[in-house]
Amino acid sequence: MKVKINNTTKDYRTVWFEPKTGTIKLIHQNKLPHNFEIAELKNHTETANAIKTMIVRGAPAIGVTAGFGIAQACMQAPETEFKKYLIDAAELLKSTRPTAVDLFYVIDRILNKIENSDSIDNKARAAEIAVSESQKIADENAAACKKIGEFGNELIRNNDKILTHCNAGALGCVDWGTALSPMRIAKQEGKEIFVFADETRPRFQGSKLTAWELLNEGIEHGIIADNAAGYFMQGGEVDLCIVGTDRTSACGDVANKIGTYEKAVLAYENDIPFYVAAPLSTIDFNIQTGGEIPIEERSEDEVLVVNGERIAPEGSHAMNPAFDVTPAKYVTGIITEVGVFKPGEIKNLKSVIN
Amino acid sequence: MKVKINNTTKDYRTVWFEPKTGTIKLIHQNKLPHNFEIAELKNHTETANAIKTMIVRGAPAIGVTAGFGIAQACMQAPETEFKKYLIDAAELLKSTRPTAVDLFYVIDRILNKIENSDSIDNKARAAEIAVSESQKIADENAAACKKIGEFGNELIRNNDKILTHCNAGALGCVDWGTALSPMRIAKQEGKEIFVFADETRPRFQGSKLTAWELLNEGIEHGIIADNAAGYFMQGGEVDLCIVGTDRTSACGDVANKIGTYEKAVLAYENDIPFYVAAPLSTIDFNIQTGGEIPIEERSEDEVLVVNGERIAPEGSHAMNPAFDVTPAKYVTGIITEVGVFKPGEIKNLKSVIN
Repeated sequence: MKVKINNTTKDYRTVWFEPKTGTIKLIHQNKLPHNFEIAELKNHTETANAIKTMIVRGAPAIGVTAGFGIAQACMQAPETEFKKYLIDAAELLKSTRPTAVDLFYVIDRILNKIENSDSIDNKARAAEIAVSESQKIADENAAACKKIGEFGNELIRNNDKILTHCNAGALGCVDWGTALSPMRIAKQEGKEIFVFADETRPRFQGSKLTAWELLNEGIEHGIIADNAAGYFMQGGEVDLCIVGTDRTSACGDVANKIGTYEKAVLAYENDIPFYVAAPLSTIDFNIQTGGEIPIEERSEDEVLVVNGERIAPEGSHAMNPAFDVTPAKYVTGIITEVGVFKPGEIKNLKSVIN
Repeated sequence: MKVKINNTTKDYRTVWFEPKTGTIKLIHQNKLPHNFEIAELKNHTETANAIKTMIVRGAPAIGVTAGFGIAQACMQAPETEFKKYLIDAAELLKSTRPTAVDLFYVIDRILNKIENSDSIDNKARAAEIAVSESQKIADENAAACKKIGEFGNELIRNNDKILTHCNAGALGCVDWGTALSPMRIAKQEGKEIFVFADETRPRFQGSKLTAWELLNEGIEHGIIADNAAGYFMQGGEVDLCIVGTDRTSACGDVANKIGTYEKAVLAYENDIPFYVAAPLSTIDFNIQTGGEIPIEERSEDEVLVVNGERIAPEGSHAMNPAFDVTPAKYVTGIITEVGVFKPGEIKNLKSVIN
């Protein structure tokens, strides 16, 4: 992704790995948009903590980061009890965030690869596999996101106004983004577009991260309170919506950032196409419907405290579900790296993956 | 309304007038919930400014405050050019907020009373009329809100969970509130209720004001991000919604705080009754549909800056409509001081008022 620092523009990935030192480097997302800093994670414990505290967030980005975390565990494990150390590291990394499926997908994929290579007792060989598999997943994800951009771009007409929720941008992936990738490609192709960025309470990923990405890309946009999305839809000012997904069920239900369900219902009610950009890695064929997806409940302080100052009176409490499930009924199409599908067609994609 | 200060509970109105000094006193709503302060407004210019900066907000509360502002103008006008001074003061007060109808209703009602009494050239007599008429409107509003509470209470069953948006509480009125009045009465009658308070971005009236009122009344509640309202509705956790209105059209469309439309559509989609608590003074029989109601656009800084710190990157902008219109289709019933009506029945109430 493009990052403007002072007067120069550099190209960055969200997360990358330095095999020599076993260090994960990533854009520190809690410092954006005001400070661009690279966080350095020295071991899988620091990596688990970075996922939990959302220094890195977004389903594909946390998947890849966790993959590199497994590589760290392999490299740094003691010679004895390697297998136990690795399993414990995997458990720790998996315990960080319950909703996004990429986290589990990536960790299991790497563990399987290690086991199938008969190197579960060979630390050095397992480390090699973990590093190369994580790197492969990172590259695959970047390539998939670019393809999503190309397919999604076909849905965008010149002068379209597009609403997005949360940050399903390059920051939430390795590069390109999911929901923002079609907008990047549309812009590169010279289309005039305008993006409504929902601010996305309680963590403001829209105002902080999506706006920052759109600024860097030179894409025209306006931030709105989440409450205002319906107003602009009702007023005929939104041509289409594109959002991301943290986990997609086999029937095409979509778990994404809290508030996505609201925007989908409003788009449905106002006859506005509602697209979900989903790398195949976010599809969980093991679950049939969205009701089976565990929804993370985060700290009430995310709602009650902003910029270190308490908003609400002492004595009041908050509930803070971090995701919701949008039933397939409200989804016009799912944009994947192999094409755009109706939610009901998702189940047929299993053969593409296996 | 009950206000707990230290360990004592006192009864307050939102706004009141001291005729001897011509001072309006009101609860400083921008200081809540952390500081309970009484603002003192010495003249109608200060009063207009207090309405504009939302030291006082809520349709009925700003109506009554503006009425007292007219009384100030009458009392403080120069002996010469009294009529011009009064008309200018009325214009200034009317220019503060465009959406709520009470502001215009109250000012015009007092001006008409003065004109009809032939005292438009008699400053002292006009001041007397303005003071007594404003006081009468304040008392009428408090009584109307209490009646709304009684009618609304009949819609609330024991153990109901009620969602409300923004603050349509005593603070937005003179006392009791509109949407919160039924909850106060239900609590007084010993019903167990739970209130979901939408935090109501961008100004957080839900977390700051509604939560403060509910705490003072000892009503169980949870604050939620506006994005989470749909989640709880979808999960079957909301039994009914009650919100306020800043202006209601003759056909029963309702202009209320931005986001109300979203919650109404979500309630409709989830078969949850959606009630609007509306003193008759908020009904504008001069307009047929909500599309005719002017929607205030407030400063983008309300969205971009929280607690003095900018959330969004420099260079990004926001759009900040303060209200939206909920079409009558989504409104189950309108709770007034003379009973609960279907939106389509609102037009018949004109005879009650005139």
